[in-house]
Amino acid sequence: MSDKQNRPSPFKLHTRSTECAARCGEVQTMHGTFRTPIFMPVGTQATVKAVTPENLVELGAEIILANTYHLYLRPGHELIRELGGLHHFMNWDRPILTDSGGFQIFSLRELAKITEEGAAFKSHLDGSLLFLSPEDAVEVQEALGSDIMMCLDTCIPYPADRTETLAATELTSRWAKRSRAAQHETGQLLFGIVQGSMYPDLRSLAVDQLLEIGFDGYALGGLSVGEPHELMMDITEHTAKLLPQDYPIYLMGVGTPENLVESVYRGVDMFDCVMPTRNARNGMLFTSRGRVVIKNSQYSTDPRPPDENCGCYTCRNYSRAYLRHLYMSREILAYHLNTIHNLYYFVGLMRSMRQAIENDSFLQFKKDFYEMRQEPE
Amino acid sequence: MSDKQNRPSPFKLHTRSTECAARCGEVQTMHGTFRTPIFMPVGTQATVKAVTPENLVELGAEIILANTYHLYLRPGHELIRELGGLHHFMNWDRPILTDSGGFQIFSLRELAKITEEGAAFKSHLDGSLLFLSPEDAVEVQEALGSDIMMCLDTCIPYPADRTETLAATELTSRWAKRSRAAQHETGQLLFGIVQGSMYPDLRSLAVDQLLEIGFDGYALGGLSVGEPHELMMDITEHTAKLLPQDYPIYLMGVGTPENLVESVYRGVDMFDCVMPTRNARNGMLFTSRGRVVIKNSQYSTDPRPPDENCGCYTCRNYSRAYLRHLYMSREILAYHLNTIHNLYYFVGLMRSMRQAIENDSFLQFKKDFYEMRQEPE
Repeated sequence: MSDKQNRPSPFKLHTRSTECAARCGEVQTMHGTFRTPIFMPVGTQATVKAVTPENLVELGAEIILANTYHLYLRPGHELIRELGGLHHFMNWDRPILTDSGGFQIFSLRELAKITEEGAAFKSHLDGSLLFLSPEDAVEVQEALGSDIMMCLDTCIPYPADRTETLAATELTSRWAKRSRAAQHETGQLLFGIVQGSMYPDLRSLAVDQLLEIGFDGYALGGLSVGEPHELMMDITEHTAKLLPQDYPIYLMGVGTPENLVESVYRGVDMFDCVMPTRNARNGMLFTSRGRVVIKNSQYSTDPRPPDENCGCYTCRNYSRAYLRHLYMSREILAYHLNTIHNLYYFVGLMRSMRQAIENDSFLQFKKDFYEMRQEPE
Repeated sequence: MSDKQNRPSPFKLHTRSTECAARCGEVQTMHGTFRTPIFMPVGTQATVKAVTPENLVELGAEIILANTYHLYLRPGHELIRELGGLHHFMNWDRPILTDSGGFQIFSLRELAKITEEGAAFKSHLDGSLLFLSPEDAVEVQEALGSDIMMCLDTCIPYPADRTETLAATELTSRWAKRSRAAQHETGQLLFGIVQGSMYPDLRSLAVDQLLEIGFDGYALGGLSVGEPHELMMDITEHTAKLLPQDYPIYLMGVGTPENLVESVYRGVDMFDCVMPTRNARNGMLFTSRGRVVIKNSQYSTDPRPPDENCGCYTCRNYSRAYLRHLYMSREILAYHLNTIHNLYYFVGLMRSMRQAIENDSFLQFKKDFYEMRQEPE
């Protein structure tokens, strides 16, 4: 236990903005380092949907996220362990962060029951009854061999009353302690998750309890669950300030390009979200000028790329007219090309933010970012 | 007219087997040459389903096929012309062959009506009434800018009575004459299609009538429409022998690996078929040992690639267990990886046949091909 507590931080700070809480750094893992602030594409079922690992490398992804809940159900963590771990299984040799399954179990709602011991839930695949304790979540993630593991947590819906929030937050802290104790010396990092809903003092309590245990990084959970944008940003700012500045700070499941800019401004280092990949499959493209809904008939004869300021494979080779044709024809290539573009946009946005922080011009970057989106095409 | 007739053949013979009718050569087009015997991946809607043009180049495809009927309906040939032609539209700079739409209209059956003037049919997309004459089919293909155009033909179901077959065959010849007359000097090649169902003398009649007009290549149509394998091979052999040996010979819509080997043996140079791409999306992989149905539970823990003799991207990087997981999880990457493998197999099979012909060892190749498929894994 004390060994884990005294382990050096995997985070190395490069530059701190003098204008705001934004900072640049890098995180060291068993599969190399990644630079922060970073966006992690989501690879739920051991694949980032519709693209290959080579596509991810080409578009600049340095770390991806995989979902413990999904892989636990199918194909099973023991199978993945036997086949050499998740990296080998899916042909990805850069870092992987696995979530704990807590958020997915929370999303099952009436199909799940939380007790002191852990979470009982029904599989969304076949309805079978399953149980995951904090120790099980660590064991599953150790079998997967991810570089960063997350503690099993109890996510709180919005809005939630104070009593319920306090109970869930304290349970999350007790589970965090059990998770740290269950961890073996595999070289994997383990992050704690701060809950506390929209109550600043409960967020503070959660931070204190996690710091008492000591983790390799700290995540903000239970945000982007339906609360107003301003509230999400206030809680993010409040919580990020309380966390030790020499450890990575990860805002889970966030978010829009605007969310990313605002959260980096408030000191967050790591993000993941299904938005770029899911919206790509629904024909929504993120661009420097805002969003392009590719099925709109205005694009049917448009010879321009999705984003004239973009250097991705899709924008270098295809027109909006072609992408609209593929989308209307339900061609698989539509999902592939749209996903490459959207992930390149998100990864590129983070790269631009890192450069702005290094140049200590983050406020100017933020101003330009918003102004660009208001210009007509 | 006479200019087109006197144009030199685009086909250059390299090697002729001394053991059988198999031959190696190349066909010259506006977008470069391709070697024969060749398999053309099918890109129905201006995309070979689930792969990029770069994937096709990497797996060795030298020419692809696109469907006139589908592109005529959506997005429309005029739009593709305005956007710079099909090559630019879909980002493919190697040769493209477009079919004429005849086979698709034939497949619509009760939705189509054939007259002397052309084919009236209902769109499968919105039921609108459309009409395509032989001249229209040439105009559409000229707008698309394909390297090889096909004459509009009337495909004959199997079985068909002699009177019906004679009428359809002669109509196809009259349409072929009108197609050749309608062609402009664009540099595009135009192939005639031999019909005649399973009647050798009507196939002979069709060949005579097409040779009278004169084309840049000759295709065998109306095969692989439900007739027994032996009959298909007999008609292929009979017809290929009648065609001028200094022009390319194309067997449309064929076929299985076995069909390809048997048809090359009988002198065929060009093939297209949806089988490798469609079966890939249904989880069926072609291998040197036969077929692998990837969803079968026997593969759930199998660490081997689909084909241990294969050098494709999929076999170099992924296990059967992973491909099965992707397929069971309905991940888009399953379609992508399976398609790359199957097309590589088909393209590689043609490459092996070309080498065997060049070494004048085609009979040995054919023997090994069948023996390999009987070996246990």
